[in-house]
Amino acid sequence: MLKWLKEAVLEANLELPRRGLVIYTWGNVSGISREEGLVVIKPSGVPYEELKLEDLVVVDLDGNQVEGKLRPSSDTPTHLVLYRAFPEIGGVVHTHSSWATSWAQAGRGIPALGTTHADYFYGEIPCTRDMAAEEIQGDYEAETGNVIVETFRARGINPMHVPGVLVKSHGPFSWGKDPHEAVHNAVVMEEVAKLAFHTFALSPNVKAIDQVLLDKHFLRKHGPNAYYGQK
Amino acid sequence: MLKWLKEAVLEANLELPRRGLVIYTWGNVSGISREEGLVVIKPSGVPYEELKLEDLVVVDLDGNQVEGKLRPSSDTPTHLVLYRAFPEIGGVVHTHSSWATSWAQAGRGIPALGTTHADYFYGEIPCTRDMAAEEIQGDYEAETGNVIVETFRARGINPMHVPGVLVKSHGPFSWGKDPHEAVHNAVVMEEVAKLAFHTFALSPNVKAIDQVLLDKHFLRKHGPNAYYGQK
Amino acid sequence: MLKWLKEAVLEANLELPRRGLVIYTWGNVSGISREEGLVVIKPSGVPYEELKLEDLVVVDLDGNQVEGKLRPSSDTPTHLVLYRAFPEIGGVVHTHSSWATSWAQAGRGIPALGTTHADYFYGEIPCTRDMAAEEIQGDYEAETGNVIVETFRARGINPMHVPGVLVKSHGPFSWGKDPHEAVHNAVVMEEVAKLAFHTFALSPNVKAIDQVLLDKHFLRKHGPNAYYGQK
Amino acid sequence: MLKWLKEAVLEANLELPRRGLVIYTWGNVSGISREEGLVVIKPSGVPYEELKLEDLVVVDLDGNQVEGKLRPSSDTPTHLVLYRAFPEIGGVVHTHSSWATSWAQAGRGIPALGTTHADYFYGEIPCTRDMAAEEIQGDYEAETGNVIVETFRARGINPMHVPGVLVKSHGPFSWGKDPHEAVHNAVVMEEVAKLAFHTFALSPNVKAIDQVLLDKHFLRKHGPNAYYGQK
Repeated sequence: MLKWLKEAVLEANLELPRRGLVIYTWGNVSGISREEGLVVIKPSGVPYEELKLEDLVVVDLDGNQVEGKLRPSSDTPTHLVLYRAFPEIGGVVHTHSSWATSWAQAGRGIPALGTTHADYFYGEIPCTRDMAAEEIQGDYEAETGNVIVETFRARGINPMHVPGVLVKSHGPFSWGKDPHEAVHNAVVMEEVAKLAFHTFALSPNVKAIDQVLLDKHFLRKHGPNAYYGQK
Repeated sequence: MLKWLKEAVLEANLELPRRGLVIYTWGNVSGISREEGLVVIKPSGVPYEELKLEDLVVVDLDGNQVEGKLRPSSDTPTHLVLYRAFPEIGGVVHTHSSWATSWAQAGRGIPALGTTHADYFYGEIPCTRDMAAEEIQGDYEAETGNVIVETFRARGINPMHVPGVLVKSHGPFSWGKDPHEAVHNAVVMEEVAKLAFHTFALSPNVKAIDQVLLDKHFLRKHGPNAYYGQK
Repeated sequence: MLKWLKEAVLEANLELPRRGLVIYTWGNVSGISREEGLVVIKPSGVPYEELKLEDLVVVDLDGNQVEGKLRPSSDTPTHLVLYRAFPEIGGVVHTHSSWATSWAQAGRGIPALGTTHADYFYGEIPCTRDMAAEEIQGDYEAETGNVIVETFRARGINPMHVPGVLVKSHGPFSWGKDPHEAVHNAVVMEEVAKLAFHTFALSPNVKAIDQVLLDKHFLRKHGPNAYYGQK
Repeated sequence: MLKWLKEAVLEANLELPRRGLVIYTWGNVSGISREEGLVVIKPSGVPYEELKLEDLVVVDLDGNQVEGKLRPSSDTPTHLVLYRAFPEIGGVVHTHSSWATSWAQAGRGIPALGTTHADYFYGEIPCTRDMAAEEIQGDYEAETGNVIVETFRARGINPMHVPGVLVKSHGPFSWGKDPHEAVHNAVVMEEVAKLAFHTFALSPNVKAIDQVLLDKHFLRKHGPNAYYGQK
């Protein structure tokens, strides 16, 4: 069942420790088959070095477990909210990667300070608001997804243009058209977070780059007029 | 004698350089068999790459050497004080890991600034007071243990809820239900120390997270209502 | 065609991820045969781990593609401007290496704060001005080269004495007598950027070293009176 | 000739890149046979990966080359001054290791902020004064040694108690009873420099530790009453 998607999700999960984004079990990747409305996700608390294809869990968009002997990641409800709200995304990643998590703990979004950022994120990577006590004590993981969606809707951000977010006091989530791209964006967000940290240390009053440069770099790689790469 | 414990203590010691927590001989792990009242600990000054099962030293809770040709770690009296004062712990780790040691040298405890911290440490990781001249010139290593115990008792901290401490001007100690978990907590403390360092640099006035979020994350992983992982 | 140069350019490109200067496809190296007026450069968007000799692209100094099935790096026009303006250089490198990019994003040149810098860069590594909207919206990559050349001409800097630059809000370019040396200078610039970051953090008012010490170290390694190394 | 010393010097040199203290040819180790008054040192500008036993150079204490086809390290006169002034040392190391060099560029000595420092360095690791123009333009490398010796004599520091120094605007030198110990001290100085950097960032007004704690840790490892390790 969904072997192609399981392979993509397994490979994307294994990429996390390889890229230095997670230690122990501190992260998870999922992928969705939009046609069947089914999501494949990492099981909860299983170390990456032991993770096998048959450990992956299949759930539907309401969270009902369709396949798999293990329990899905405790963050599954967050992933499902994102899949329901952002119909163009095909993969979701959550990590506690060090630089992005520091920004999340500081409660600050990451402005576009250079072309590295602009190549992937079309403007500031936002940081969510504090969650209310009722949200934390209620359906916490689903509410985490809700506060992400609220952030993008309230600020009018297109999630395909800014494929990542910082959940305040928690850490980064990212996404993409498939699990592979979602991990790619997680790696870039971590690097961008590191660059921005050091940039502010060197120039505390630095401002986001001009819209013209942001447009140039983002559109050089995305959309109908892209001319980067081989296609 | 205590082969199972020696294997656990050896494996836990070797994990320290593998995880980047120690260079040279700058750390040690011990484990205890509560039934027999015996502690297995690394010998003093032996490099990790040469460490073998038969090098490990067995001592009783009063510090009498019961087995082993080598001298035990010079920090053995600190470990013993912790085992006597905290009856639930089964393993103790001491390192000079870089980020945690920087906080110890700065004399600052590490507040819970995010969910990564809250998943493992139920509140601030405390920093001990300065040791008095008599303590340093007396039974120094035992007094180091005493000042740790004093810190937890005076502030009413449950050592199973906050499984680590910063000894001022020195470095971190951590513990757990066994040597493996003690090392796990040492790795987490180092990562949490790094996150907190960068968080304060980004937002110097950042505060500890709310009790509600702290409860949610700690209790999601610990206690009767935990729902993280597979059990 | 130009096999010797292709081998040098391939090897120099592969050095970038090996030295930790690039992830994914975030960099490119080219080399020139001055005799034939031809430049060999990395193709656009091809991952380093897949890069083969036959993937390299040959262009003339006007940017006409002379050989190769793939499209050249999107930064090719920047390389060509540098080859045309700086007749002594034989190789050019562009990366988004972390420390140098942070300085570029901060919009600050890197002053010569010590002998490590002086051994390779005869004074400050300059940072270019902001590019104008017309430059960004026009022939952007060629204009990036133009703003680099303008920086060196306006300040009277000899590009063989300061073999690198920070493009504001973007990242570093470096060069040398051949692709190998260009990469060597990229590695040094990254290390020098890191040293300078930490130096300013320790002593915010630190000044560039004296001309006498700058002369001593640069001329110990460069020019007719050099006495470092074996020739 | 001096095969035992050459092997020790070769091994110590190769340890430098392995420990992350040098890139390219940015460092050198020497060792001395006091009986014969001969020093073995790395040749100038030879990459570590190519360094072989027969490449090492033998010089006497006046700098006369006694054996070897290659030219000795350009820093040889500095090493010789140290061997002449500090009769107890048997090995000398120079690197541009990143953290120590940042302190040297900042012109600041590294105070003893914790027990990691105290275990190896009995007080502040000093930073030399600026060198005068005549010193730089004269016998520069010998004068670099002289300014180190002056620093230790003027402040009454025993070089066996503080086996390292920061040369202002340049980088660290360290030493020990043999080349192996000299490299060990270089590794420790780098780690101590990193710890001190982060400690000051966390607590800008932190002071050196008390003499009592400094005594305890240094003398636990050094001198007649040492009780660390197996002898």
